[in-house]
Amino acid sequence: MTYCVAVRVTDGLVLLSDTRTNAGLDNISRFTKMFTWEVPGERAIGMMCSGNLSITQGVMTRLAKAIERSADDPDVETILNADSIFRIAELVGEAMQAQQDRYRESIQAGGVGADAMILVAGQRKGGRHRLFMVYAAGNFVEATSDTPYFQIGEHKYGKPILDRVVTIDTPLEQVVKAVCVSMDSTLHSNLSVGMPLDLAVLRRDRFAFQVRERIGADDPRFQNISREWGGRLREAFLAMPDLVSID
Amino acid sequence: MTYCVAVRVTDGLVLLSDTRTNAGLDNISRFTKMFTWEVPGERAIGMMCSGNLSITQGVMTRLAKAIERSADDPDVETILNADSIFRIAELVGEAMQAQQDRYRESIQAGGVGADAMILVAGQRKGGRHRLFMVYAAGNFVEATSDTPYFQIGEHKYGKPILDRVVTIDTPLEQVVKAVCVSMDSTLHSNLSVGMPLDLAVLRRDRFAFQVRERIGADDPRFQNISREWGGRLREAFLAMPDLVSID
Repeated sequence: MTYCVAVRVTDGLVLLSDTRTNAGLDNISRFTKMFTWEVPGERAIGMMCSGNLSITQGVMTRLAKAIERSADDPDVETILNADSIFRIAELVGEAMQAQQDRYRESIQAGGVGADAMILVAGQRKGGRHRLFMVYAAGNFVEATSDTPYFQIGEHKYGKPILDRVVTIDTPLEQVVKAVCVSMDSTLHSNLSVGMPLDLAVLRRDRFAFQVRERIGADDPRFQNISREWGGRLREAFLAMPDLVSID
Repeated sequence: MTYCVAVRVTDGLVLLSDTRTNAGLDNISRFTKMFTWEVPGERAIGMMCSGNLSITQGVMTRLAKAIERSADDPDVETILNADSIFRIAELVGEAMQAQQDRYRESIQAGGVGADAMILVAGQRKGGRHRLFMVYAAGNFVEATSDTPYFQIGEHKYGKPILDRVVTIDTPLEQVVKAVCVSMDSTLHSNLSVGMPLDLAVLRRDRFAFQVRERIGADDPRFQNISREWGGRLREAFLAMPDLVSID
């Protein structure tokens, strides 16, 4: 399984993913699920993947191959020369459709799911910063002010905290804290989501990532968030009045 | 969908269920999912159901019919004369197997799931207070000190708070608060779980429920828990240090 969350607030974009993949409980590996590209000063793009790893790796390879081909032939459209983030989401959707058309039937014949989802976030000069969720069918939806975040993978454990503290106006530092708490709740409850984590932050109108780092299991900042949150949650819980008194 | 949670701590048992059922999003109804029986001073039993409603209603009817038959024939074994809570879980499992044998195939032929689960909690004089989770196959597991609670239905949203605040030593009043916060998180995040709620509390060695009530959407105590928890959660969140500073 996987847990990836991306948030689009007024100030910019925040992406956080885990790195655990598994084919059954006895076959656990580590794969990056976050990919970023920058044309400094012009565009910055981040993607996160969940679902069948062969499908999403294939999508990423198709995007990379197009970039390679465009070196010789500038007419090849790629995520680095597409004229909007919307168009980039379409390119990801097209690569997804191509992968699904090629492999879905044979994957499913083996009793394995071919579903996959990709979050596409970024901004290019002249456009807004945007966040899309691309489905296995290649279609996609966009995050709005009403729902400023998307989750893919094992999303339920970490949803309540996002619903409580993230709005379109939340500052980026707080969004980072919120997605880390959301991830921490998921890590506590589900073994198929695991450290280390990949974090990326893109402030609006900068066209380069301000934060792009890996957070390891021994990272004192994440350990601190995890410990503090547990303690504060228990304090807040104990401070609330009882609902009933029991004889 | 459904959300039911039962907790077994040293002091006793707490059960909480929602009352929403749905067959698709456009066919939502209200059904009780919690059932209790008392032989005051001798035994008290509570059950909660999730999954296919025709299956679980059938199981409850089979248990009730046995009680009716035992009025004329004291040799009929029922949940009211069985000699242990373990044996009661077996009787529930047998009724579940009978329902599954009779309907599973035809239900599944219609493309509908026949899965169902039942939580069985209670104590009889001379025995311990116990909590079992009965599967669709009729087999069951028991809650222990390591994992003092079971959830059925839409359990993921409400799991992190239980993992953080409930242990085998938690007092009953706090357990009630914890399951209400857990339910509140689920209600916020999932439309298929809905008010009103059914709550039951059984203190150890009393053999009668101390609390057995319905909590309506307009219940000021639950509204208070929901509002206070939201506020305290945000406060705790804001008081935590930021993980990163962003240019």
